[in-house]
Amino acid sequence: MSQINHQVRLAARPSGLPQPSDWDIVEEPVPSPGAGEFVVAISYLSLDPAMRGWMNAGASYIEPVEIGDVMRAGAVGKVIASEHPGFAIGEHVYSAFGVQEYALSDGAGVLKIDPQLAPLPTYLGTLGMTGMTAYFGLLDVGKLSEGDTVVVSGAAGAVGNAVGQIAKIKGARVVGIAGGAEKCRWLIDELGFDAAIDYKSEDVRRALRKAAPEGVDVYFDNVGGDILDAVLTRLARGARIVICGAVSQYNATEVQGPANYLSLLVARASMTGMVVFDYASRFGAAAAEIAGWMNEGRLISRDDIVDGGVSAFPDTLLKLFAGENIGKLVLRVGAD
Amino acid sequence: MSQINHQVRLAARPSGLPQPSDWDIVEEPVPSPGAGEFVVAISYLSLDPAMRGWMNAGASYIEPVEIGDVMRAGAVGKVIASEHPGFAIGEHVYSAFGVQEYALSDGAGVLKIDPQLAPLPTYLGTLGMTGMTAYFGLLDVGKLSEGDTVVVSGAAGAVGNAVGQIAKIKGARVVGIAGGAEKCRWLIDELGFDAAIDYKSEDVRRALRKAAPEGVDVYFDNVGGDILDAVLTRLARGARIVICGAVSQYNATEVQGPANYLSLLVARASMTGMVVFDYASRFGAAAAEIAGWMNEGRLISRDDIVDGGVSAFPDTLLKLFAGENIGKLVLRVGAD
Repeated sequence: MSQINHQVRLAARPSGLPQPSDWDIVEEPVPSPGAGEFVVAISYLSLDPAMRGWMNAGASYIEPVEIGDVMRAGAVGKVIASEHPGFAIGEHVYSAFGVQEYALSDGAGVLKIDPQLAPLPTYLGTLGMTGMTAYFGLLDVGKLSEGDTVVVSGAAGAVGNAVGQIAKIKGARVVGIAGGAEKCRWLIDELGFDAAIDYKSEDVRRALRKAAPEGVDVYFDNVGGDILDAVLTRLARGARIVICGAVSQYNATEVQGPANYLSLLVARASMTGMVVFDYASRFGAAAAEIAGWMNEGRLISRDDIVDGGVSAFPDTLLKLFAGENIGKLVLRVGAD
Repeated sequence: MSQINHQVRLAARPSGLPQPSDWDIVEEPVPSPGAGEFVVAISYLSLDPAMRGWMNAGASYIEPVEIGDVMRAGAVGKVIASEHPGFAIGEHVYSAFGVQEYALSDGAGVLKIDPQLAPLPTYLGTLGMTGMTAYFGLLDVGKLSEGDTVVVSGAAGAVGNAVGQIAKIKGARVVGIAGGAEKCRWLIDELGFDAAIDYKSEDVRRALRKAAPEGVDVYFDNVGGDILDAVLTRLARGARIVICGAVSQYNATEVQGPANYLSLLVARASMTGMVVFDYASRFGAAAAEIAGWMNEGRLISRDDIVDGGVSAFPDTLLKLFAGENIGKLVLRVGAD
C-alpha cells in the first residue's frame, strides 16, 4: 500500500462557488493506529450540496470546517490496520472520514456495513444519509398521507429521487422538478414518477398547474430560489413544505428569500426545516425498510461514480452546483 | 334617523398605499327590510391590516372586494328595523356589515353581542376577530408551552398586544417589537411584557440577543420584512413561527421574502400560516376564556377609537400602515 495519504484541506472560505484556491491538496504519511484506534482505507467519498455550507464560517446545524482542516465528507472504506478490539482488519465501515485516502479512527460515529448486501456507494446514498434524509423528511417532517400530491425539486439528485420513489411506494402522486430532458425522462421511465417538470425549458408555475391540478400537499425542497417561489403559488390547503436544502442559494452571496411565503397563510400551510442527524436512533429501522424495497425492485439506487481520487474532489463537488449529476454523486478514492 | 346611508365603495385597486381616488363615498337610501331581513345601524367599524389584501384582485383566503362594492369590514351595531323572527329591534349584533352606516342582513354570519358584558368596540377587538386571531394563532398554531420565550411583532397593535398578554397568562416570557418609545413603554408598564424592542431606534437582531438570550420558541409575526428576517436569526431549536400577517409588505409592489429562511433548517423550526376563520367553531369558548381574563384584570383591552363617520375611513385605514395606532383601531360610525 502507498505510504502517502493524500488529503484535501480547506485553504480559504469561498465567496460564491468554491475556487481551486480554496483547497490545499496535501500529502501526509499514512497514520499508524495507537491503542484503541484503527486505520481505514477509504473506497468512496460522498459529495453533498450541504458541503458548501460547512465551508462557511459561523455556527449552523453543524460546526464549520476550519481553515486547514481536512474537508468533512461521509465515506466508506475498509479497515487496514487496527489496535481496536471492536474493528478488525478487512471490515467495511462508514463514517465522516473526510476527503482523504486514509483515516485514523477511535470508532466514535463509525458504522459497520456489509458489502454483500449492497454495493459500497449505496451506503453513502440510498442506504446512507441520503436515503435517511429522504425517508424522514418525507414521512416525519412532510407527514405524507396516501393519495397526497408530492412535489420534489432536485428530483434527479440523490435525495430527490429517493423522496419521489418512497412517495410512490407510499401511494402518493409524485411530480419531480429537475433540469433537462434526460433527467426528466429518467424520473418518468425508470422511477415511475407521475410527472416531471424540466425547469430549464418549462415555466414551472404553469407546468405545476397541469401536473398538480388539485394543488401540492407535500413539497420537498432541495433547491430554494425561484422554484420554491413557484411551488408556493400552488399549495393545497394544509400543505407541508420540507426545507431540506437550497442548492440554488448555497453559492449566492445574498440568499433569495421566498417572496411568495404569504401563500403559507392563504393555504394554512407550513414550512419546516430538517436535519437528518436528529433521526439517528431510527436509522437502522429505516435502512432495513429501504433495503427491503430495493430487494423487491420497488426502489432503484443509482450512483454517479466519479474516478480520479481525492485530487478530483474540488472539480467533482462543482458538478452538484451545476446540476450535472443524476443520482448519488460519489468519488472513488480507493479499492472496494 | 337619517334616511341616507353613507357608504365607502372600492373605486379602484390600489398600487401601493390606497389613495383617495381608490374610494367612492356614495349616498344611498337606507334600505327597508323584506321578509326575513333586518336593518342594522352600525356603531363601530373594525379597521384591520388584512383589508389591504381584500382590495387586491385574485383569490386569497377570502374573495376580493369587487370594484364598486361596499368595502368589507367587521362592524357592530343595533337592529333598527326587522322582519326577521330571530332578530329584534334594539338587539346588538356583529358581522362583516361593511363600511357603511346601515346594513341590510338576512342573519347569515351575524352574531348577537351583549353591550352589558363589554363595550361595543371590544367585540371588534379583544372579544372579536382580533382576540380570536391572537388566541388560536398563539395556542393552536404556535403551540405555546409554559416557559417558552415568545416574540411578537406589531406588539402594540390589536392582535399583537393580545398575543403578548395571553402568552404572559400562559406562563411565557414575552418580548414585544413595536415602533416608538410610547408603544414600548405601554407594553412593559401597562401590559407586563418582559421586554420591548423599539424597531425604529434599535437594531432588532442585537436587541433580541439581549431580550431572548436562549432563543425564540414562538414568533408571532404580524409584520414580515426585516423584522421577520431578524427574528429568524434567533430561533431556538424547534421554534414555531406563526405567519399571521405582514403589514410591512401589504403595500409593497414586490414582497420581500425572508432571506434568512434557511434558519428554519438550522433550528428545525417551522413557519405556519393561519386564517382565523378556521377556528370559528371554537370562537365561543375562546371568547369566554378571554372575557374571564378581562374580568380578572389579567388582560387589558385597549381600543383606539376614531370619530368622523364612514367618510373618515380612507384616512383612518392609513393609520394602520403608518403604525400610528395603539391597540385596536375602530371607527365610530353611529351611536352605541
